[in-house]
Amino acid sequence: MKEKEFISSIKNILNSNYIGDDCAYLPDLGIVITQDSLVEGVHFSLDFMSPYQLGYKSVMVNVSDVVSSGANPKYLTIALSLPSHIQKDFVEEFYQGAKAACGNEIQVVGGDITGADKVYVSVCAVGSTEYRKISSRKNARRGYKVVVSGLHGSSAAGLRQLLAGEKVQTDFIKAHLEPKAQIEFGRNIGKSLQLDYAMMDTSDGLMDALSIIANESGVLLEVYFDKIPYDYHLVQFDDFQDLVLFGGEDYGIVAVVPEELDCGGVVIGHVKEGLGVDLRFGQNIVHYSKEDVEKKIYNHFEGKDEI
Amino acid sequence: MKEKEFISSIKNILNSNYIGDDCAYLPDLGIVITQDSLVEGVHFSLDFMSPYQLGYKSVMVNVSDVVSSGANPKYLTIALSLPSHIQKDFVEEFYQGAKAACGNEIQVVGGDITGADKVYVSVCAVGSTEYRKISSRKNARRGYKVVVSGLHGSSAAGLRQLLAGEKVQTDFIKAHLEPKAQIEFGRNIGKSLQLDYAMMDTSDGLMDALSIIANESGVLLEVYFDKIPYDYHLVQFDDFQDLVLFGGEDYGIVAVVPEELDCGGVVIGHVKEGLGVDLRFGQNIVHYSKEDVEKKIYNHFEGKDEI
Repeated sequence: MKEKEFISSIKNILNSNYIGDDCAYLPDLGIVITQDSLVEGVHFSLDFMSPYQLGYKSVMVNVSDVVSSGANPKYLTIALSLPSHIQKDFVEEFYQGAKAACGNEIQVVGGDITGADKVYVSVCAVGSTEYRKISSRKNARRGYKVVVSGLHGSSAAGLRQLLAGEKVQTDFIKAHLEPKAQIEFGRNIGKSLQLDYAMMDTSDGLMDALSIIANESGVLLEVYFDKIPYDYHLVQFDDFQDLVLFGGEDYGIVAVVPEELDCGGVVIGHVKEGLGVDLRFGQNIVHYSKEDVEKKIYNHFEGKDEI
Repeated sequence: MKEKEFISSIKNILNSNYIGDDCAYLPDLGIVITQDSLVEGVHFSLDFMSPYQLGYKSVMVNVSDVVSSGANPKYLTIALSLPSHIQKDFVEEFYQGAKAACGNEIQVVGGDITGADKVYVSVCAVGSTEYRKISSRKNARRGYKVVVSGLHGSSAAGLRQLLAGEKVQTDFIKAHLEPKAQIEFGRNIGKSLQLDYAMMDTSDGLMDALSIIANESGVLLEVYFDKIPYDYHLVQFDDFQDLVLFGGEDYGIVAVVPEELDCGGVVIGHVKEGLGVDLRFGQNIVHYSKEDVEKKIYNHFEGKDEI
């Protein structure tokens, strides 16, 4: 993926300590900040997605990054670029979706609206770190447990159904078009912990998150496939295990936290000595190195990477 | 301009108090935040603009919004979307330009990079409000003076030269492609004042800023054309007065502050009783209502509006 190459150049030029996690943590301001874009024809198609869903998902994608840092999502700005044929209805529905995703505790406070050839959305989200411990991908420790929140694989299954021409709004399609960030789960962990911990959302798939945490923390995550929560209708797909493990855009959360923490979610594994991810299917263990996972990463659309 | 219509719908849906100034002021977090986008073919052409200049200008446009709020610009995130033919050189030069615009006190801390049909840049900037009084367009008071920083009309003249095929990098063209935000001026005002004041950048032209401040504050601004600072080479254009008054993208600052404030810049007028802008050309006075100014607004490219 070309974007991955670009990112290492950018990191070199900027020489910044902030770049790496889902959000940048700015302790002097007491905030985290993140920005994520959705581009028509790259990340979504208006053939499948309503303006309401686009507004909804654009917000959720960014809120998910904030909550997976452990911060409390508060404010958003939204840049929306639109071709000239787009009418007011589109903009209104988009913002109704955005507002619905914000709920009562998050507010859109600014942004801009411009012309463009295609629909382009870029959202910036800010969370408060007050009274919270912020996560880092590097902070998984031996003896910690691996906890997840949300169902895994549904969004990728929904995308597959959409691409196959499915017209019924299945639960999978809904999971793809209107994903729900695990706001309460992430928010509670950030509020409850004073020890270091690791947390990420599963925007690029569950295994992607597990592998990044394992490799950046220098530990082995032992994970039981049978414990991973997924919609049982997924078994209709021959490769349902791949959907669960590598399907992106579920916006679930993976947290690697001290054993004793009572945080809800589902415990799917533990941190061990070693490096990478050991995936247990019953009695069988499959080891995934960083490279193994990168090779298998499931990319619905084209490349999209955070810096 | 269609975007203007959209904005009133958006404001209705969001029903937010934050929307209105160049930045949203978030007192609970002690920050201001702004987001501004530049779209290829709408706001810039790569025929005229180097990747370095695009990175530089994208940053300056946003930093200008932060300093014109009176806050201290600190951090940026950058979303960059690129067609697949774009090479690594482009990305590196873009970020070198962005870094140059940041100087030593502002840092890029995140963002994303994605595919797209055209080059699209959306920057989010955050400023600290600590020890600062934040401006509002509504805060011009009778008895205050009107102060500006920066030269007016140069950027619009530069754009005109570029469109006419000028190949030499004139000062005007440089002003258009590599505008400099009035960082020190804005920052000092925010730091020095404890009274209410109004401040805006001149991204959409000097008269646009004067008119918005006058009308939102419910006052008359009396302004002397002869006091307005501009590059004297501008007089080569028959309509140089229009360039000075209505040309956009200079990213100068207009501040309407108490008479006694020692803030640098150039005093171009005073606040009087009444509504709108009285422009004095020697002995002649031309009155501009809100509608007069909106009719004359100089839009280089297509519509672009902040919410």
